[in-house]
Amino acid sequence: MNAWISDPAEIYRQSFATIRAEADLARMPADLADLAVRVVHACGMTEIAADLAWSEGAGLAGAQALRRGAPILVDAEMVAHGIIRRNLPAANPVICTLNEVTQADAKGASTTRSALAVEKWLPRLDGSVVAVGNAPTALFRLLELINAGAPRPALILGFAVGFVGAVESKDALIASDLPHVALRGRRGGSAMAAAAVNALAGGLS
Amino acid sequence: MNAWISDPAEIYRQSFATIRAEADLARMPADLADLAVRVVHACGMTEIAADLAWSEGAGLAGAQALRRGAPILVDAEMVAHGIIRRNLPAANPVICTLNEVTQADAKGASTTRSALAVEKWLPRLDGSVVAVGNAPTALFRLLELINAGAPRPALILGFAVGFVGAVESKDALIASDLPHVALRGRRGGSAMAAAAVNALAGGLS
Repeated sequence: MNAWISDPAEIYRQSFATIRAEADLARMPADLADLAVRVVHACGMTEIAADLAWSEGAGLAGAQALRRGAPILVDAEMVAHGIIRRNLPAANPVICTLNEVTQADAKGASTTRSALAVEKWLPRLDGSVVAVGNAPTALFRLLELINAGAPRPALILGFAVGFVGAVESKDALIASDLPHVALRGRRGGSAMAAAAVNALAGGLS
Repeated sequence: MNAWISDPAEIYRQSFATIRAEADLARMPADLADLAVRVVHACGMTEIAADLAWSEGAGLAGAQALRRGAPILVDAEMVAHGIIRRNLPAANPVICTLNEVTQADAKGASTTRSALAVEKWLPRLDGSVVAVGNAPTALFRLLELINAGAPRPALILGFAVGFVGAVESKDALIASDLPHVALRGRRGGSAMAAAAVNALAGGLS
């Protein structure tokens, strides 16, 4: 086996240099430049930056909400565990309600655990930062609740992934008047959603 | 917003049908067919199946190790939290040592936290199932330790991701005589690594 680079600072430097050389970041607004780099870094795909969509001022809205102490609502434990707690500006609570819902609960409500878990976000939704990194049904249910009058988050990060509903749920978010950053298409995931939160919390530092 | 599919069984059925229709699974050995489907499912990319590499008998070796009670050693908390504990066949311990290592420790050893954390796997390494879903340096350090005489895992799942060392560390694993399943290239991640473990634990059930 050849020698390998073990210096963390050098690994970051080379990684970010590769991303900046290959990814189409020129079209990103300044308040989302770090977010785009971090999302690309999380997945190893520089071309994915072209699939990012956002509402105007989304990056600033997310960063300000975090500094105000907004809770971070996530749809999966993997997202929660990808968020670097020590970098959060106001010791923001990171809340995943998925394990408060059983499969029997979901079966009784004829829906997914992920969708049902979103209903438990309601008391914390106003001004929150939402990060969906797994389940399209979580994002669909959130949009439904807000359409029906639920409080509005400060920002919704849409990184649902997969073959059933991921494209459609993120397109619905992008078409809405809600503050958002989302990745168009089937691709997404917990690592990208967590990376987006980490970027809003502290840029690339 | 249009109607959306909320029946979990139907979501799985349609997802797996799409994957089987689009992904090149014919070349996969029988003991890795479920693993390939689950890895594709985790990332939303059907073309990624073409980048999987494996040693002969890897799937069976991993499944048998889990049934024997092998510990699962992971390089990141996100991998640990993507593993469905209730499906593990022998209440296998899932061990992530990353948070046992501080940045000061890593700086003192002139390496990454991820690489240093792997040294803490040594007492559990023999016959284990290793899942690397994040750090190339964790995989490099593991291969170094084994080259130097450390015990051999029953299976190494190589899904390191990124721009510095991911390609090279996984190529080194694939070129070794160690039992492995790995994803060639920059792509990878915690969700894929956890999906691979989940497939070995219980197929698609």
